[in-house]
Amino acid sequence: MENIKVIIWGFGAMGSGMAKMLLNKRGVDIVGVCRRNPSFVGKDVYDVLDLQRGDRAPIYITDDIESIVKEKSADVVLIATDSHTKDTMDKIRLVAKNKINIISIAEEMAYPQAQEPELAKEMDKLAKENDITILGTGINPGFVLDLLVLALTGTCEEVDFIKASRVNDLSPFGGTVMKGQGVGLTEEVFTKGVSDGTVVGHVGFPESIRMVGDGLGFKIDKIEETREPIISNVERETDHVKVESGNVAGCRHCATGEEDGVIKIDMEHPQQIHPHLEGQETGDYIWVRGNPDINMSIQPEIPGGTGTIAMAVNMIPHVINSRAGLKTMLDLPVPRAIMGDMRDLIEK
Amino acid sequence: MENIKVIIWGFGAMGSGMAKMLLNKRGVDIVGVCRRNPSFVGKDVYDVLDLQRGDRAPIYITDDIESIVKEKSADVVLIATDSHTKDTMDKIRLVAKNKINIISIAEEMAYPQAQEPELAKEMDKLAKENDITILGTGINPGFVLDLLVLALTGTCEEVDFIKASRVNDLSPFGGTVMKGQGVGLTEEVFTKGVSDGTVVGHVGFPESIRMVGDGLGFKIDKIEETREPIISNVERETDHVKVESGNVAGCRHCATGEEDGVIKIDMEHPQQIHPHLEGQETGDYIWVRGNPDINMSIQPEIPGGTGTIAMAVNMIPHVINSRAGLKTMLDLPVPRAIMGDMRDLIEK
Repeated sequence: MENIKVIIWGFGAMGSGMAKMLLNKRGVDIVGVCRRNPSFVGKDVYDVLDLQRGDRAPIYITDDIESIVKEKSADVVLIATDSHTKDTMDKIRLVAKNKINIISIAEEMAYPQAQEPELAKEMDKLAKENDITILGTGINPGFVLDLLVLALTGTCEEVDFIKASRVNDLSPFGGTVMKGQGVGLTEEVFTKGVSDGTVVGHVGFPESIRMVGDGLGFKIDKIEETREPIISNVERETDHVKVESGNVAGCRHCATGEEDGVIKIDMEHPQQIHPHLEGQETGDYIWVRGNPDINMSIQPEIPGGTGTIAMAVNMIPHVINSRAGLKTMLDLPVPRAIMGDMRDLIEK
Repeated sequence: MENIKVIIWGFGAMGSGMAKMLLNKRGVDIVGVCRRNPSFVGKDVYDVLDLQRGDRAPIYITDDIESIVKEKSADVVLIATDSHTKDTMDKIRLVAKNKINIISIAEEMAYPQAQEPELAKEMDKLAKENDITILGTGINPGFVLDLLVLALTGTCEEVDFIKASRVNDLSPFGGTVMKGQGVGLTEEVFTKGVSDGTVVGHVGFPESIRMVGDGLGFKIDKIEETREPIISNVERETDHVKVESGNVAGCRHCATGEEDGVIKIDMEHPQQIHPHLEGQETGDYIWVRGNPDINMSIQPEIPGGTGTIAMAVNMIPHVINSRAGLKTMLDLPVPRAIMGDMRDLIEK
């Protein structure tokens, strides 16, 4: 069997991380990389990633996607360019028409049925017409606050209520993330930012809540989100931002899902820089109330960057094996690390 | 769409628990129950379980499986009679030839490839010939020390080593379990029991270790198990057994899986009555060493009885939807509680 062929579309922190991971795996080749930034175009991926190429062929970065995405020119395209389904839709259309499977890490693509039901229908139709599978995944949405919650409920006879929390440290992230979370702002500017949409917080609550609700069979008829400033009592600083005491260290973004006036799903995701400076431990937490109750914790939290990169790559065999259509993490087998030859995971 | 039709073969603590759970669910009917014990034969399941039957038809327990398992007489048979694959094999053959899907909670059936590869091949062939799916599941093996471990590694780029531990309380269980775990014995008699096979400990380590190894692509070439007495420093007692101070409160059963002389998987499952009497908290713990490291804990442990009952029932839709063959928890979508109509989960 030939090696599995992968194209990477988008070569920022996530796309380049996927490339690095793939180049350490057996039975899989990267057959194309697309990045628009002119300073990368024409460069060899091995040089950019500072990896030994050995006797492997160079992989030149292109800005012309149509020079690499051609009919069945790969088994999977990993798309790592957007957060919103509508922004990534033209890319998905192009890849689908070339009959190549798609894995997207756009947060909304983890469950496009939540906010873009019409586009979800179009993708499902496109996928079936072209006999491919389209999947959205990532650490969150895609795992911690949805798939892992559901997996734990697999051991429950009944579930009444779910609470889940992801407390993480934003310190490793860059300026764009700091801006979106309102880090470094005064409380007043943060509040204004929430109103005018410049302080976004986490992208993915409607997706996680719908995925959990649909997965369990709750009829969620109302989703509410709140974004509050995490005010720092100490000075905090990273390479990208400085927070004065009294200003905003991050965004406490929470969301609930109701069924017929009763909150069935309650999620929180406070994201800030250097939480330990005020004694805040980080972690992922899930509480299921039902029969039985389940109290799970992962400390520290599963890191967002590595987790998303790994999920996208680890789902490649499952996407190749899947029946055609738009699929979610609920439809496919459980993701797992791939320490052997990736080809061994492909069903004949 | 008609309700999903389920037959339950074996009506002890597990089988009757599945019946109770199913009778509380929508879109599913129990169409037959088989139990050999003459004091149950001919009785109505609703009476035995002390449940209101309402306007539902009675379900009379039979000891004649062939009176209920006929060609396509149900969508799934839940088999809850055995621990070992070879003991349950004739039952599987009978159900398969009648073209009905099978879910078994026999511990070895969680991964029959581990200890019964020839029977696993026969089952896969049988399943494909009869266009059905055969699945083994349960809380452990089936979830805590294997599927959940693998699910967490889905967020990892690399995995070097896995340690997992399930520390539970045996107090709710009956005399047979106490005997198999050596509870109440002197240390000397326990040690003799381990040698002559009367003290068994946990059934399922080879299955969990192979499942994790195969799931990750480790080439596990050696599995070793140890069974040691948990000596009590206090008096402990349940309805079924009394443990004098200095005698055995349970069995600390451990197992390792090696690849080429290196331990890659290390599991422990100390089972005892009243662990809290000596300050021992119960819980499920998973430590992944790789990129990233993951430290997970569930406290207290997911209860074994309820967990196994729920896993078997919650996998029904996935088994009906699956392609034909012998499947494991690695092949099917993640289990989840079913709070809606079970028919909504069946793919058209």
